Amino acid sequence: MNFSSKLLETAVGEFSKLPGVGQKTALRLVLHLLNQDKDEVEAFSKAISKLRNEIQFCGVCHNISDLTLCEICSAPKRDRSLVCVVEDTRDVMAIENTSQYNGLYHVLGALISPMDGIGPSDLEVDSLVERMRTDEVKEVIFALSATMEGDTTIFYLHKRLKDFNINISTIARGIAFGGELEYVDEITLGRSITTRVPYDGVTAK
Amino acid sequence: MNFSSKLLETAVGEFSKLPGVGQKTALRLVLHLLNQDKDEVEAFSKAISKLRNEIQFCGVCHNISDLTLCEICSAPKRDRSLVCVVEDTRDVMAIENTSQYNGLYHVLGALISPMDGIGPSDLEVDSLVERMRTDEVKEVIFALSATMEGDTTIFYLHKRLKDFNINISTIARGIAFGGELEYVDEITLGRSITTRVPYDGVTAK
Repeated sequence: MNFSSKLLETAVGEFSKLPGVGQKTALRLVLHLLNQDKDEVEAFSKAISKLRNEIQFCGVCHNISDLTLCEICSAPKRDRSLVCVVEDTRDVMAIENTSQYNGLYHVLGALISPMDGIGPSDLEVDSLVERMRTDEVKEVIFALSATMEGDTTIFYLHKRLKDFNINISTIARGIAFGGELEYVDEITLGRSITTRVPYDGVTAK
Repeated sequence: MNFSSKLLETAVGEFSKLPGVGQKTALRLVLHLLNQDKDEVEAFSKAISKLRNEIQFCGVCHNISDLTLCEICSAPKRDRSLVCVVEDTRDVMAIENTSQYNGLYHVLGALISPMDGIGPSDLEVDSLVERMRTDEVKEVIFALSATMEGDTTIFYLHKRLKDFNINISTIARGIAFGGELEYVDEITLGRSITTRVPYDGVTAK
């Protein structure tokens, strides 16, 4: 692109580093910001800078938090014997939205991905193992993406955790509710047949 | 969404004000920035703030520029008798990319849109009329979107410019190169028949 201004080019360049944002989209976003009040753009710029410089993580579960112990870890009513292992804070939010889970979390921060150079040491694994030693944990639930990286991570974590006296489980995989059979991929459909569950005449579990 | 951190919520809120960015995308972008080096995020934040505070516009054509007279307006080799009227800097970039135009530009900054409360006074119209008086302009080309707003703006500008001794034209409309007839809308197809052009046996013009 031929930019008429260096300032414009720099801003577009920074925006187009974001995932899924190409040069055209970046230009559209930058021109949008140019049309906003100076105060609003300053607020936008400050929010990003402040977030990166002042962000904190919970000392126990490593979820993003403004406190050294996050609201979930410090809540007295939550079941401290359950730990759900997730990749990042988005997964915590997604599970919290279901209102079906009342235990604690452990945020790994990433999944093992040799292709991207991410090994076990880049994940919050040691602190998870430590929690098994010190906490009153009875069950660890792996809620990781059903991808190669997720499966690799589960495999590795299982090896690290299997000697502790705890139950280890993963979230159920199968046909999504509302999903039509003809559009489901072969692997999911095949697995959902081999891992079929008893039907009690009332609801599909 | 249930955010575990106020800082995170603020940053996501700011991002989701951008056009076409919903809360989920905003969260993805913010988490991406959180994974970057502090310096890089600071550069991102600064580029936006600096752009908004220091941006300048060419005093003649109103295109975004770091100089008081933009590179196009000050280029000695460009045809000063041609002025192409466009909506914003993206259109200037698009036309420059074609390498088919060697005249000057006039950036209106917006199109007349009563629905959005944008009237003629919000556009750089007076300075365009002024250029007709003082400059050596022989032809004005309207290169505006083929929308209701574009047509309204052309209609209004034509009324303001018609008493000057200049040619007024609009860019050609019709079937796009590579376009298949069956997918073209009726209005474009109908108009392209009524405004058909002679064929000289060599190339479609």
